[in-house]
Amino acid sequence: MTDRILGVLGGMGPLASAQFMVRLTLLTPADRDQDHIPAFLWSDPRVPDRTAARLGTGEDPLPALLRGIRGLEAAGCGAVAIPCNTAHGWYEGMRAATRLPILHIVEAAAEDLRRQGVPPGPIGVMGTAATLAMGLYQQGLAGAGWDCLVPDAAEMASLVSPAIALVKANRVPEAYAPLAEAAGRLVARGARAVVLGCTEIPLGIAAGPALPFPVVDTIDALARAAIGWARG
Amino acid sequence: MTDRILGVLGGMGPLASAQFMVRLTLLTPADRDQDHIPAFLWSDPRVPDRTAARLGTGEDPLPALLRGIRGLEAAGCGAVAIPCNTAHGWYEGMRAATRLPILHIVEAAAEDLRRQGVPPGPIGVMGTAATLAMGLYQQGLAGAGWDCLVPDAAEMASLVSPAIALVKANRVPEAYAPLAEAAGRLVARGARAVVLGCTEIPLGIAAGPALPFPVVDTIDALARAAIGWARG
Repeated sequence: MTDRILGVLGGMGPLASAQFMVRLTLLTPADRDQDHIPAFLWSDPRVPDRTAARLGTGEDPLPALLRGIRGLEAAGCGAVAIPCNTAHGWYEGMRAATRLPILHIVEAAAEDLRRQGVPPGPIGVMGTAATLAMGLYQQGLAGAGWDCLVPDAAEMASLVSPAIALVKANRVPEAYAPLAEAAGRLVARGARAVVLGCTEIPLGIAAGPALPFPVVDTIDALARAAIGWARG
Repeated sequence: MTDRILGVLGGMGPLASAQFMVRLTLLTPADRDQDHIPAFLWSDPRVPDRTAARLGTGEDPLPALLRGIRGLEAAGCGAVAIPCNTAHGWYEGMRAATRLPILHIVEAAAEDLRRQGVPPGPIGVMGTAATLAMGLYQQGLAGAGWDCLVPDAAEMASLVSPAIALVKANRVPEAYAPLAEAAGRLVARGARAVVLGCTEIPLGIAAGPALPFPVVDTIDALARAAIGWARG
């Protein structure tokens, strides 16, 4: 039992943050309710679209993100987890505005690559167009020797971006085939593992047969990091 | 898009309230994040065991329940949903302490029986020993003509109560067989449908083949009631 309360800044999308709560629970060693981690999920799907903002066509989401962090602070949370990769493009702005530690999803993904024994070298990363354009993973993983292969513009437009939108529209099973195809192409180009670097992607991938190569589920990776924080 | 924010008083158990968030999302008609319902989940698994309290062997959970409701009020929520049937034994105490409407899970279950066209007459109800001892469903559904058959003491001790504990301990697949057996016995005694009147029970039932008779999933029923509230 812990008295550390985890703050979850969610709703981006809401299915991903709900699934984060499921996985946080299932990955926690527990025999009864009282062994689980207290958590407050601020699920605000009204946060302006992160990808549109980063690509210059949408409203800045930072004020809405900070409103959520204020809510988590007021609720007594001791740390913040954000199960949305693209929102980490505003990580510095959030970090500067709160005394709470914010677990970083790219660091959680790196830890999961280590946990799975993925050696330095080429790996694949799938994410939103904004996450890839910002180089969130390319820069975040380079120091440890992982070189990120990403889908090309045509693959993003025909496979990855439409699949992410399908999950956000509750059409989860339809997202499996295009995501599996895009991941397989990265492996064909030499990737030894594929990071599912948008939290909608593991939802789509879970709707079909397991992929025949290592993947990093960034929902699970962040949940493991949160459990590590809660257990002190 | 709605500006009504749903408050979810959860953590009882945490897997049930996480699954409530999943189902709230999947049952909401939506094409993109911003179409979904803003919702704050206060997942506090430290709330003292409701069944032990009601059976006279545990601490009163009402102070912890009210602490959660205060948190949801402070966060700006407009209504409260509680995905724990047993906690509704303290419904009046909570209702008297807040200006927020609290959706009642037994009313949501009744609405779901109507939605499924279950006629008045015998139905089965499974729940915690406390929920059954309080007569939450027996009293709540009698006015509409549904007569509740419940598992006997031996079935509670050997099937239902252990299965609920298995879900709370993350051993979900093991809960299926005893729950399916208990539900089937109620149908054999004349029940035309079975209310899964503890939010751990639909999680266990979902781990195996669908039951061959109508069931009311109280997670889904409460999610539908919450969507109805949010859509005004």
